[in-house]
Amino acid sequence: MERLPLERIVYFGDTARVPYGVKSVATIEHFTAQITEFLLQQDVKMLIVACNTMAAVAADVVRRLARDIPVLDVIEAGAHAAVAESNGRGIGVIGTPTTINSNAYARRIHALDPGVRVYSQACPLFVPLVEEGWLDHPVTRLTAQEYLKPVLAEEVGSLVLGCTHYPLLKPLLRDVVGPGVRLVDSAITTAELAAAKLLELGIASTHAGPTAYRFVVTDVPLRFQTIGERFLGRSLGTVEKVEW
Amino acid sequence: MERLPLERIVYFGDTARVPYGVKSVATIEHFTAQITEFLLQQDVKMLIVACNTMAAVAADVVRRLARDIPVLDVIEAGAHAAVAESNGRGIGVIGTPTTINSNAYARRIHALDPGVRVYSQACPLFVPLVEEGWLDHPVTRLTAQEYLKPVLAEEVGSLVLGCTHYPLLKPLLRDVVGPGVRLVDSAITTAELAAAKLLELGIASTHAGPTAYRFVVTDVPLRFQTIGERFLGRSLGTVEKVEW
Repeated sequence: MERLPLERIVYFGDTARVPYGVKSVATIEHFTAQITEFLLQQDVKMLIVACNTMAAVAADVVRRLARDIPVLDVIEAGAHAAVAESNGRGIGVIGTPTTINSNAYARRIHALDPGVRVYSQACPLFVPLVEEGWLDHPVTRLTAQEYLKPVLAEEVGSLVLGCTHYPLLKPLLRDVVGPGVRLVDSAITTAELAAAKLLELGIASTHAGPTAYRFVVTDVPLRFQTIGERFLGRSLGTVEKVEW
Repeated sequence: MERLPLERIVYFGDTARVPYGVKSVATIEHFTAQITEFLLQQDVKMLIVACNTMAAVAADVVRRLARDIPVLDVIEAGAHAAVAESNGRGIGVIGTPTTINSNAYARRIHALDPGVRVYSQACPLFVPLVEEGWLDHPVTRLTAQEYLKPVLAEEVGSLVLGCTHYPLLKPLLRDVVGPGVRLVDSAITTAELAAAKLLELGIASTHAGPTAYRFVVTDVPLRFQTIGERFLGRSLGTVEKVEW
């Protein structure tokens, strides 16, 4: 929204079936296909897989269904950012269990730089801690210290926040990892890659009127609206619910 | 299984869509109807709503669909146990946000004893902490101390573990609440009520052969099998997956 203020965005949140991070690849592929079909019916010109877990295990499902519509995903973006910021030191990656077990970050990073060392750690409690709103709480600090101990022992130069919830923990994580480790958030890189791709394909919007945002969810919107506005720092307007 | 060793049991776990505890009543009612229809097709003679969140907001959906098949639920059982153990002191209830917001425990307890004081507290992080296996961990202890502080300040005589995950935290919770507070686990009361109801209706099994257990889930069974065997303390055998 900030990087591409002229673009209309349709956001889809599968709130009735989240979290995805501890579910199987087969189930995530099934949900992903359903959501992709829905978004394609909204006549979109680009698809962004903005959930790391979905990007880790089901980006190919999206690409297959999207045919000639361009598809970006946050792991591709995160891997680029991580390599750019690694300064020759090792890269730490934190994410949900499904993302980490998929090894998708390590594969994407090694495709860009085969020599870099990658250390991964699943952090299953970070999503519930963020949703509880304990962004700066002794419980979250203690949990982060425990999860990050093995990664920090490898003296990594950067740490990829491989889940869209984690950037809300940035101030706390910065304390825990110390000044020598850069935190890599794929959100900004994803927005940059999207802007570049839209330009490259000649499909960027030049319409300067007020932009319309649609937020679509699968559960009753109330909780999404509360948490979404905490993430976004502004009102979401009307949130639609699809019946599945 | 221990109280009614002659009965065949079909267990259904909606692993592709859990947790229910932070989802809306409308979505839980929808999932509940689907699962009830499935179990009725298995030709069961009794239905037990063994999830506190579902019992709190959707037990009526089960009763309506079940028609003349008896339906028991863990909140009814927990309310009976809580009143029996309250000794004239206040009752604390902990559960998921949806269970606590529904006020179902307070309503059921007050139907049995209108004079008793009930203090409720949502504990959204307990389910993820149990699933992480941190049953005796400083993070879990700190979280429990924080959640239980307001309830303990009311000097309750008992604390209802209003979620099927919480009994795994019993040793830790016993430490946190101290010797003056009894922990009420509805599982045993539910089994007792089921046994009494089967006898009363003359439908208890007298077949003494080896019993068959079926475990049915909606996600790939692997994770369910691991966590389920940790809960149950024994092997689950084959776990089936339904395609929805």
